[in-house]
Amino acid sequence: MTTTAADTRALQARLLEEIPLARHMEIRVLCSDRRSLLLSAPLAANSNHKGTAFGGSLYSVAVLAGWGLLTLELEARGIDAQIVIQECQVDYLLPVSGDFTARATAPDAAVLERCARTLARYGRARIDVAVAIEHAGSEAVRLRATYVVVRS
Amino acid sequence: MTTTAADTRALQARLLEEIPLARHMEIRVLCSDRRSLLLSAPLAANSNHKGTAFGGSLYSVAVLAGWGLLTLELEARGIDAQIVIQECQVDYLLPVSGDFTARATAPDAAVLERCARTLARYGRARIDVAVAIEHAGSEAVRLRATYVVVRS
Repeated sequence: MTTTAADTRALQARLLEEIPLARHMEIRVLCSDRRSLLLSAPLAANSNHKGTAFGGSLYSVAVLAGWGLLTLELEARGIDAQIVIQECQVDYLLPVSGDFTARATAPDAAVLERCARTLARYGRARIDVAVAIEHAGSEAVRLRATYVVVRS
Repeated sequence: MTTTAADTRALQARLLEEIPLARHMEIRVLCSDRRSLLLSAPLAANSNHKGTAFGGSLYSVAVLAGWGLLTLELEARGIDAQIVIQECQVDYLLPVSGDFTARATAPDAAVLERCARTLARYGRARIDVAVAIEHAGSEAVRLRATYVVVRS
């Protein structure tokens, strides 16, 4: 089963509808191929006092990319669950001086399988997702985000 | 030298003027006494798909509390510098189901002194600030944020 353009559009609508701040950050779901999910955001809506991207915006877009990736993955597996961020380490490597993209990379298939089995057995599982903010061809921000998944 | 109500009001104006997202998050500078700085934000402007506070908003308000604390500290010392977030570990301990407050706690005096000396000598220094999000009397989110300070 693959993620379709309709899934991507539904995720975009859900993000903007359910999280007011996502509207203000003008987040767009660029694409998703089940191995990764890309969200973009413009600098203008997300700038700081130095005219570069605000660290809180970079973090928020990245955390939503990881959340979106897991949301589509669980939907594709027919699992109805809530996904919430539990902890995160974020490293700012370079200032971001323009529009930017957050790329969430899917965990290995074996890790996803283990998460799905734990969820089926205990109704709850933890899973790490790596997210990078890319700007002008370089990795500018790196996150290792841990999410808790709870079966609805 | 102490932080005055005028400093606190100037910080509030600066936050809302220079960071568009701070306006949308409806952040307010509650108070500052040089040992801590408190920012508040309402749930309505910062909610997620579950009706609790969005993890990105909690992070953003907390990181701005640490930034505000350092900004006032450096101003009080007569140091003109830029402060940017470099890395952060964030732990979400409890869901936040109402308006919330971020409390940044000043580093020990010896740590602030060392930061000021390093800044004077090299024009650049790193400093950690602990920030907690409090909600209904409990610590709900905990951050250890590292900032880089660069003399202007």
